[in-house]
Amino acid sequence: MIIQRSQKIFNASGADRLYVTAPDLRFYLTGFSSSDGCVVTDGEGTAFYTDARYLEAAAAALKGSGIAVKQAPKGGYSVLAEGAGTLAVSISRMTAAEYLELTKRAGKIADCTQAFENAMSVKDEGELAAIKEACRIADRAFEDMLGAFKEGMTENDAAAELEYRMRKFGASGTSFDTIMAFGEGSSVPHHETGARKLKFGDIILMDFGCKWGGYCSDCTRTLLFGDDKKHEDFKKAYAQVLKAHYAAKENITCGMTGREADEAARSVLRGAGLDKYFTHSLGHGIGINIHEFPYLSPRSTDVLADGMVFSDEPGVYFEGDFGIRIEDSVTLLGGKVLSLTDSDKKLIIL
Amino acid sequence: MIIQRSQKIFNASGADRLYVTAPDLRFYLTGFSSSDGCVVTDGEGTAFYTDARYLEAAAAALKGSGIAVKQAPKGGYSVLAEGAGTLAVSISRMTAAEYLELTKRAGKIADCTQAFENAMSVKDEGELAAIKEACRIADRAFEDMLGAFKEGMTENDAAAELEYRMRKFGASGTSFDTIMAFGEGSSVPHHETGARKLKFGDIILMDFGCKWGGYCSDCTRTLLFGDDKKHEDFKKAYAQVLKAHYAAKENITCGMTGREADEAARSVLRGAGLDKYFTHSLGHGIGINIHEFPYLSPRSTDVLADGMVFSDEPGVYFEGDFGIRIEDSVTLLGGKVLSLTDSDKKLIIL
Repeated sequence: MIIQRSQKIFNASGADRLYVTAPDLRFYLTGFSSSDGCVVTDGEGTAFYTDARYLEAAAAALKGSGIAVKQAPKGGYSVLAEGAGTLAVSISRMTAAEYLELTKRAGKIADCTQAFENAMSVKDEGELAAIKEACRIADRAFEDMLGAFKEGMTENDAAAELEYRMRKFGASGTSFDTIMAFGEGSSVPHHETGARKLKFGDIILMDFGCKWGGYCSDCTRTLLFGDDKKHEDFKKAYAQVLKAHYAAKENITCGMTGREADEAARSVLRGAGLDKYFTHSLGHGIGINIHEFPYLSPRSTDVLADGMVFSDEPGVYFEGDFGIRIEDSVTLLGGKVLSLTDSDKKLIIL
Repeated sequence: MIIQRSQKIFNASGADRLYVTAPDLRFYLTGFSSSDGCVVTDGEGTAFYTDARYLEAAAAALKGSGIAVKQAPKGGYSVLAEGAGTLAVSISRMTAAEYLELTKRAGKIADCTQAFENAMSVKDEGELAAIKEACRIADRAFEDMLGAFKEGMTENDAAAELEYRMRKFGASGTSFDTIMAFGEGSSVPHHETGARKLKFGDIILMDFGCKWGGYCSDCTRTLLFGDDKKHEDFKKAYAQVLKAHYAAKENITCGMTGREADEAARSVLRGAGLDKYFTHSLGHGIGINIHEFPYLSPRSTDVLADGMVFSDEPGVYFEGDFGIRIEDSVTLLGGKVLSLTDSDKKLIIL
């Protein structure tokens, strides 16, 4: 029951009231998506307040959930904090303006960000099903896209084609701005998709994902648009990045820290003398948000557990020349990594 | 010169340092888009700090701008607030967590949200050009879409087709989740686009927009998919909404408040006995963000001025039956409203 989510965080907070306005946290607590609203939990139960535009839809969606649907108070949501001895909020998911307003209403403010991160990082069955569907759509769009690359098309054109396919296959939208990098653009980890045209022999690096049922997928593939026989260095590096990608999948397990997980892939690239080109971290949690807890990086102390969903995305970047990144969205099941995006990762030459 | 934007807000703040991390405000101050960074202005000048991923691109983009590009400090951006007597920030554009961290670093915090709102609401030539392009693309996509509606297609399919066209015509993405409502779905102002299939005689309400050069467009059209001769009430109401839409365009001028602007359209619907079905406000500012200052609503005291860009979007909604909204993005030029989106608003019957 979804009402247990708010009750669990309320109970963990030790506060006498939980107050949540951030859209992602509200969606987590209610399963109902809206641009405006406030979830309040106290000893009496959980209520979702929203404005007139959403009342009817919220009442229908939350029928039988045990969460009461109520109209937004006239004076703004902060009225709902009035009289609380200790009010639990997430200080990382509200503006300073909202926080300062709440300090006038409640006796004390307690931060429950950590409780949200812990709870949201471990996905239940329904959440996993949504992420799996977002991953399935991304895979299908990628596979369908392989036949659509044409010499002379721009990065923007190719991104449009890929996003169109995700949308047509059922996604509600992208989970982030698609990165479509041709040739030397692939050497910039956060390349801005632009007007560069596709040429024979180009590397194509595509980092993409979509949303389904409110949850995200994330995937990166690097391929060759024709083999001009000038890509020996690329092919050697590709094999090492793929080895690092699989090493992470084989070695990551429950109880490991984010640092240890990162090292599972980084050590492979180090062995090949490529670690100095692996300029970002191995991965990040994926859920309602495209970047969330846990983080898999050289400094992360986050502890991995069954049911967590995160990316496995080693990459190497040779400035001005080329870059490679191979990414799947994965989850931990019975202590083993299960790949959720899983389209072909052998080097594809179109 | 873009550097004047940060200097102006710094000077207006009366603080000895301006500190900005929010992506939209950073983009406004630098014209450079990144997921991570901090703009600092003091008596010495303006600097943009960002992490290794963006340094090279930022240096290239800001060359000759007078804005120095520097590497992010190791201890996090809040280090840059250290020693400030009064630090100017926007409390509406930072998290409470960030704010609390800054209170430990700076002597005093001053809020400069209003200065940002005032500055960002009046667009300069370059900003207007970007918005015009985003509007031109939206218009073109709409016109091209008219031939693509087919009986049996879902709302999701139609939204995918429309978004694909905006992307292909040059947009970097959508400026918000497209609303595509068929039939009775049009009666919900914030309808969630879904699997409803298009039938002969359906009303189609589409609210859409795209981004170009970092700026948004926003447009709504309501049309009929074939005339089943059962839409007399709809046609009468459509004529009144269109009249209200044009009344706003004819009567809104500089110096008017948002309340007076809203009334220009609302009074027309009141005259037709339809004002109780006009359940939202007339419009909102449009720029880097899809909703920004000024607001055109029954309670808004915002004062309109030349160079502002906002929506003119009266609508009426008959619950469970049908809805109508007609929206253009417009600007004020020489005290007169100039329409930026401007595709056909006469009732289209496909």
